[in-house]
Amino acid sequence: MKPIWIKHAGQLVTMASDHQSARTKEAMSELGIIEDGSVWLEDGIIVKTGTTLELEHIYTERAAEAEVVNAAGKLITPGLVDPHTHVVYGGTREHEFEKRLEGVSYMEIMNAGGGIHATTRMTREATEEELYNQTKKRLDSFLQHGVTTIESKSGYGLNLETELKQLNVAKKLNETHAIDLVTTFMGAHAVPMEFKGREDDYVAYVIEEMIPKVASENLARFIDVFCEKNVFTPEQSERILGAGKAYGLIPKIHADEIEPYKGAELAAKVGAISAEHLLKSSDEGIQAMAESGVIACLLPATALYLREEAAQGRKMIDAGVPVAISTDCNPGSSPTTSMPLVMNLACISMRLTPAEALTAATINAAYAMGVEKFAGSIEPGKKADIVMWNVPNYQMLQYAFGVNHVKKVWKSGIQVV
Amino acid sequence: MKPIWIKHAGQLVTMASDHQSARTKEAMSELGIIEDGSVWLEDGIIVKTGTTLELEHIYTERAAEAEVVNAAGKLITPGLVDPHTHVVYGGTREHEFEKRLEGVSYMEIMNAGGGIHATTRMTREATEEELYNQTKKRLDSFLQHGVTTIESKSGYGLNLETELKQLNVAKKLNETHAIDLVTTFMGAHAVPMEFKGREDDYVAYVIEEMIPKVASENLARFIDVFCEKNVFTPEQSERILGAGKAYGLIPKIHADEIEPYKGAELAAKVGAISAEHLLKSSDEGIQAMAESGVIACLLPATALYLREEAAQGRKMIDAGVPVAISTDCNPGSSPTTSMPLVMNLACISMRLTPAEALTAATINAAYAMGVEKFAGSIEPGKKADIVMWNVPNYQMLQYAFGVNHVKKVWKSGIQVV
Ligand SMILES: [Zn+2]
Ligand SMILES: [Zn+2]
Repeated sequence: MKPIWIKHAGQLVTMASDHQSARTKEAMSELGIIEDGSVWLEDGIIVKTGTTLELEHIYTERAAEAEVVNAAGKLITPGLVDPHTHVVYGGTREHEFEKRLEGVSYMEIMNAGGGIHATTRMTREATEEELYNQTKKRLDSFLQHGVTTIESKSGYGLNLETELKQLNVAKKLNETHAIDLVTTFMGAHAVPMEFKGREDDYVAYVIEEMIPKVASENLARFIDVFCEKNVFTPEQSERILGAGKAYGLIPKIHADEIEPYKGAELAAKVGAISAEHLLKSSDEGIQAMAESGVIACLLPATALYLREEAAQGRKMIDAGVPVAISTDCNPGSSPTTSMPLVMNLACISMRLTPAEALTAATINAAYAMGVEKFAGSIEPGKKADIVMWNVPNYQMLQYAFGVNHVKKVWKSGIQVV
Repeated sequence: MKPIWIKHAGQLVTMASDHQSARTKEAMSELGIIEDGSVWLEDGIIVKTGTTLELEHIYTERAAEAEVVNAAGKLITPGLVDPHTHVVYGGTREHEFEKRLEGVSYMEIMNAGGGIHATTRMTREATEEELYNQTKKRLDSFLQHGVTTIESKSGYGLNLETELKQLNVAKKLNETHAIDLVTTFMGAHAVPMEFKGREDDYVAYVIEEMIPKVASENLARFIDVFCEKNVFTPEQSERILGAGKAYGLIPKIHADEIEPYKGAELAAKVGAISAEHLLKSSDEGIQAMAESGVIACLLPATALYLREEAAQGRKMIDAGVPVAISTDCNPGSSPTTSMPLVMNLACISMRLTPAEALTAATINAAYAMGVEKFAGSIEPGKKADIVMWNVPNYQMLQYAFGVNHVKKVWKSGIQVV
């Protein structure tokens, strides 16, 4: 494979820095920008970054062997990282979306077997191959939107067999698709219909049957739980996460999405790597997260789709919480694959600056899913995951909103878009 | 030029009907859908639509001479129509966007010569060629998003010379670019700095100098005014529109965007073809529009960008107002070219159904800019402006939001995307 030399970038955003953790406060605005920037890629790895002049000196003798890419007038950034998705699911729910807008109530839809129960049914019914093919299309779309690494949760099986199927599909896609996937076990995404009224039995099933099996087959790196009123209590959530930790799974929590429920506080207490949604988190919860270094994984596209007020991203950053952002790609509350739109919404709805939004979608997102060693910045030794954008600077990327400005994408040094 | 035969469309949305005006109420849900649909295009015109079986009978003998396009599993719709843009402008304001998010107030930016005054300055300074080239790029992006016809307003010149320059650029682009442009004179978009405190003098200048010149050079079909507190009063707006009407220009009004200001009522009173924004319109204003058949041109992307509550689209449709939607493409409050996102937002933020949103972005938008004779539906005799979408049905187009699902675009029978 020829080396690739991306030259003359109008703006090369490296995100390089000496920080050894997810970025907070002012550090979220340090983009490591190089004007007239150059990147040398070799064997799928980033070898060298600098100004074009610098790299011309270093690579004088090897220039001829490289494939040269002229990035004049273009923005170059790390591949985007999406740290929170439910991308492996069966079926779609566009007709339910239409019914809702035609005036059918959520309860009527749920009673007719719709909502998450519909997705659970369709995910259970899908063969592994169907699930693989359906998910692959979504991953292709992620790639088109500049995303090169994503987290993928189970949680539409809600029984052992289907949870394993979801995680196995993600594992296979990680092996076969350009995108890197890291998996999260989320058997505690909802209480399945067959356990209605026996919630603690389901918690026991998750703890005693699912977690040991998932861990023994090495199918997940993280464990997540939907800690929310009428789903799993903080007490149940803590038990589930504790059981996961005992098997080496790292905790995440869907917290304070619909009501304030002390989910942020719990995330700090159990040492979660990240807490998700956080629309209704208390000031105390935000403070606790800042003190414990829990990454806030904020999902402004979901808030938009549900017509909810977005999370207080601005306030969280000011309080010292490291913030990441994500699509939350799922068939109910966020059927989108557009991280560029999520960055736009981080600015528009959560008042992040353009620089903070980019940090939240790259290096902080990489920390939120434990891939900071190889993704989230353009630094020597990391995977050559790089996006060329059809805009001259990172400000334009957020300002000219609602448009996918991706021009080219390299994943591990191979051009895939 | 070979005929083109688009065959086997998973869903062919024709928008065909017997209605002779912009669609209201239930008629906004009549999409004229043909399953396994076919369209025959010839000489840039739609010649025949029907099921594939029907067209196979009709064109048995001519099938061999046509270019056949297999649309199996795909949605086919009319080219989208954007009836409200300020697409011809100089410069961009991404750094101002960043400053706002870094905490600089709107007044500080205005006092530093930012905001609309910055765009006016940059538009005045740009040569006609610069303005043409900059706008052409935006039109290319519109086309990529399935838009084949747009309205284009002046209003960043605010002096005769520059207003004419903007309108001339739009005229040239209409001649040279695939997209059809229809122009609106909007000298009364703002009061320029040099007329500060002499607002009525500016109104007189618009009426006495600008309108006659624009009309005599035949540079605009419509006239628009920003009727808003601290901009132009209803009385001034009525005078300007009346003067335009006397020269054959058809009125539109930017109404009730920031405060309730009886703009919707005025639109009905002067017989405007459409009223724009309408975020704060009164119930009486909505009723008056319904009775007069004024088309509400709603701009949910602008509301999102400004963090305002979107217009009451649902209520307007239920009240019998014909609703159209638009990007409002402009460098201050809506720097986007994505009509697909605008359709998504019409559903999400204004509670239009997926069918209503598509009607609002096609046939009703065509009525709002007076091009219903050749655009907005797939009917014999109309221009062959057609979009193939990478989704199986129109519901999916709105449900899977934030993604540009365009696969192919034909403009006047020529594939341009
Ligand atoms: Zn989630
Ligand atoms: Zn406007």
